Amino acid sequence: MSKVLIQAMVLPMTGPDRFYPQGEICIEDDRIISVGELGSAPAGFVPDRVLDLPNDVVMPGLINTHTHAAMTLLRGYADDLPLMPWLNEKVWPFEDKLTDEDIYWGTALALCEMIRSGTTTMLDMYASMDQVAEVVLKAGTRAVLARGLIGNGPNGNRALQESIDLVQRYHGAGAGRVNVMFGPHAPYTCSAEYLRKVKVEADRLGVGIHIHVAETQDEIKILQDQYGKTPVQWLDELGLFGGHVVAAHCVHLTPEDMEILARKHVCVAHNAESNMKLNSGTAPIIELRAQGVVVSLGTDGASSNNNLDLFGEMRSAAFQQKLCKGSTVLPAYEVLEMATVAGAQTLGLEDVGMLAPGFKADLITIDMDQPHFYPRFSIPAHLVYVAHAGDVRTVMVDGKLLMEERKLLTMDVSKVCQEAETRAKRISAELMDK
Amino acid sequence: MSKVLIQAMVLPMTGPDRFYPQGEICIEDDRIISVGELGSAPAGFVPDRVLDLPNDVVMPGLINTHTHAAMTLLRGYADDLPLMPWLNEKVWPFEDKLTDEDIYWGTALALCEMIRSGTTTMLDMYASMDQVAEVVLKAGTRAVLARGLIGNGPNGNRALQESIDLVQRYHGAGAGRVNVMFGPHAPYTCSAEYLRKVKVEADRLGVGIHIHVAETQDEIKILQDQYGKTPVQWLDELGLFGGHVVAAHCVHLTPEDMEILARKHVCVAHNAESNMKLNSGTAPIIELRAQGVVVSLGTDGASSNNNLDLFGEMRSAAFQQKLCKGSTVLPAYEVLEMATVAGAQTLGLEDVGMLAPGFKADLITIDMDQPHFYPRFSIPAHLVYVAHAGDVRTVMVDGKLLMEERKLLTMDVSKVCQEAETRAKRISAELMDK
Repeated sequence: MSKVLIQAMVLPMTGPDRFYPQGEICIEDDRIISVGELGSAPAGFVPDRVLDLPNDVVMPGLINTHTHAAMTLLRGYADDLPLMPWLNEKVWPFEDKLTDEDIYWGTALALCEMIRSGTTTMLDMYASMDQVAEVVLKAGTRAVLARGLIGNGPNGNRALQESIDLVQRYHGAGAGRVNVMFGPHAPYTCSAEYLRKVKVEADRLGVGIHIHVAETQDEIKILQDQYGKTPVQWLDELGLFGGHVVAAHCVHLTPEDMEILARKHVCVAHNAESNMKLNSGTAPIIELRAQGVVVSLGTDGASSNNNLDLFGEMRSAAFQQKLCKGSTVLPAYEVLEMATVAGAQTLGLEDVGMLAPGFKADLITIDMDQPHFYPRFSIPAHLVYVAHAGDVRTVMVDGKLLMEERKLLTMDVSKVCQEAETRAKRISAELMDK
Repeated sequence: MSKVLIQAMVLPMTGPDRFYPQGEICIEDDRIISVGELGSAPAGFVPDRVLDLPNDVVMPGLINTHTHAAMTLLRGYADDLPLMPWLNEKVWPFEDKLTDEDIYWGTALALCEMIRSGTTTMLDMYASMDQVAEVVLKAGTRAVLARGLIGNGPNGNRALQESIDLVQRYHGAGAGRVNVMFGPHAPYTCSAEYLRKVKVEADRLGVGIHIHVAETQDEIKILQDQYGKTPVQWLDELGLFGGHVVAAHCVHLTPEDMEILARKHVCVAHNAESNMKLNSGTAPIIELRAQGVVVSLGTDGASSNNNLDLFGEMRSAAFQQKLCKGSTVLPAYEVLEMATVAGAQTLGLEDVGMLAPGFKADLITIDMDQPHFYPRFSIPAHLVYVAHAGDVRTVMVDGKLLMEERKLLTMDVSKVCQEAETRAKRISAELMDK
């Protein structure tokens, strides 16, 4: 039995008025057993370990609901290009060269960065997902893994089988830290028949579906030309919605699309920085939330962003919506909800995203004793509009410390950085030789 | 005589192809004497001090060309409000309560934050500028100071006299680290007569003018109603342009406005995050630069942003323009130029903004040995799209170290934070009692 007591400012994310300027959290093994003011620990609770951090805010770990973790290997490899040359000439040739081991180390790099920036859970869509699962298990984070499925490609059926195997091998692994979804890439890269097959398998195995939807105007045009419908209408008509679906991007939506997403309880992973940097557009987040759609935050891959920092993503999501919709939309606390509570809802995780008794001990502390966090008028505003990745001091997942005083405890950072550097440079050299 | 040798990756900002992966910089007293590959130090150069930082990038210190430093005291005091209630009900009543001492400590807080985020020079527009000058001299940074002039207010003439006194007392102070400009607030808060008077005094004393221009649609409407002109046309007609003028914001411009700004060599301080958060709009940065206008970056005050971090500002400026104008505009190196070379041009400082022999030793180092900076494909892309304020390790201004290993050497950070906290809370309590 391991018992930890954290004494800090507590922002439990259980409601906008809930904040304990001098608070404490009791943790037993993997779960939170109490949250409240200093002195609120249950009688008889004798901690093995006390984290006394009166100038830190403790809050739920951040949840990244759309990324391609191993694309860290492409970070800075190609920027400032038009979308299609960027993909055709840079991203795809590079990805073609990735081995299983490359993906292991690229994901390891992503997890180091995520832990250091306060992200405790990710929804990852990529390939070689056994390697991804293994490195997540080693790193100690929480993850939902989706094997990316390009149904129209030569490996569509093999990838679908890999997804089925992945569910059988890793769904619920690591005492529930790892879960699996199906990851059909997008409505324009998967045929109707393929998508129906994915849906049948997902339902049979009782897991969700993660898919890119309505990311660019090009996609809208392709679907219009091919099916005479919007991506959302088309997926709805195919019967893909209805179960647990996480739709990434959703930038270009009609009012009818939004109504479908709301009615079918599709969750949306919003990727503000990727959408801005790649000129994809401004997703109608305010409108979706007004209709009751659960909207959470993703970073997308590090080649389109170029980091995996959800603090930056919160800030950018707020700024983009305020620029386009007005200064009063998306107040700070709501943005924090998107990165925590709504992230958990999006991933179907019922016991993370908040600090409350019975919830998993997935939490982070942020060092507020720095000039940029004074004066302390509003902790939510500071976290959204001021905080940086580097302000995270402590990270705990499932009751286990993954970072203390900014030192990673489960990963050999310098080996991970060197492996990533060597592998990325090997691939770029191979591509230059061609 | 003090001689410092810095061995690091060197990004001198003297041209897009100039980068020394293993480089060194020699500094004698306040000036750089050589920049090049390892081993390029002049014969006979024997340093008193060597900074051996092979995994850091050394680059010019960042230059913030529009801020209201002491508004750190209002950080997080009011957010997510419409512009006019935010100003009328929150910002202005708070500012009315500020004493000279409050402004001293608010500016001290700003300077601690700026140094820690790699900013070595600011253009500050505020009140109690003697206090501001004193704390800049103590902190060791470089600054151009403009007493904000609300010509239409009751203190217009007194403030103008304070500006004149400020020039006489502080222009060129601290061996040239402090300079002064006149700061008429905006064309809608200063009459024609007042602006003409400011121009006469600025010309007489040989200093520049800093003014807000075309920040919001409201301002455009006010000027149109009052004078039948755009702000730029009106200021041009008044004769305000022609000398050294720094125009902040410039969000809403006509093609004719842009042509005037270019022809009159007006420099523009762009404030992407403030413009997004307050829903002011998207400044036509690409168009201005295409016409040859010097465009640099400002953070605006911490109450509208809510920090003074130019790394975040670079990122946001790039993202905002890419969102609105296309993914290929403002490539990373150009954004870095805006924050360095163009910043120096904007402030009329001829020997900062680049690392080159004869230039002032105003420089920063960034710790690139962290997961988010691997792999190392593009240092400029990493600095703009990935870096955070917390990645800055070393700051030097005028050849003097102001921060080493993230420890501030000229400021008592904990006293500054406590003074700021106490003073800000005193004012908010007074306002609540009313």
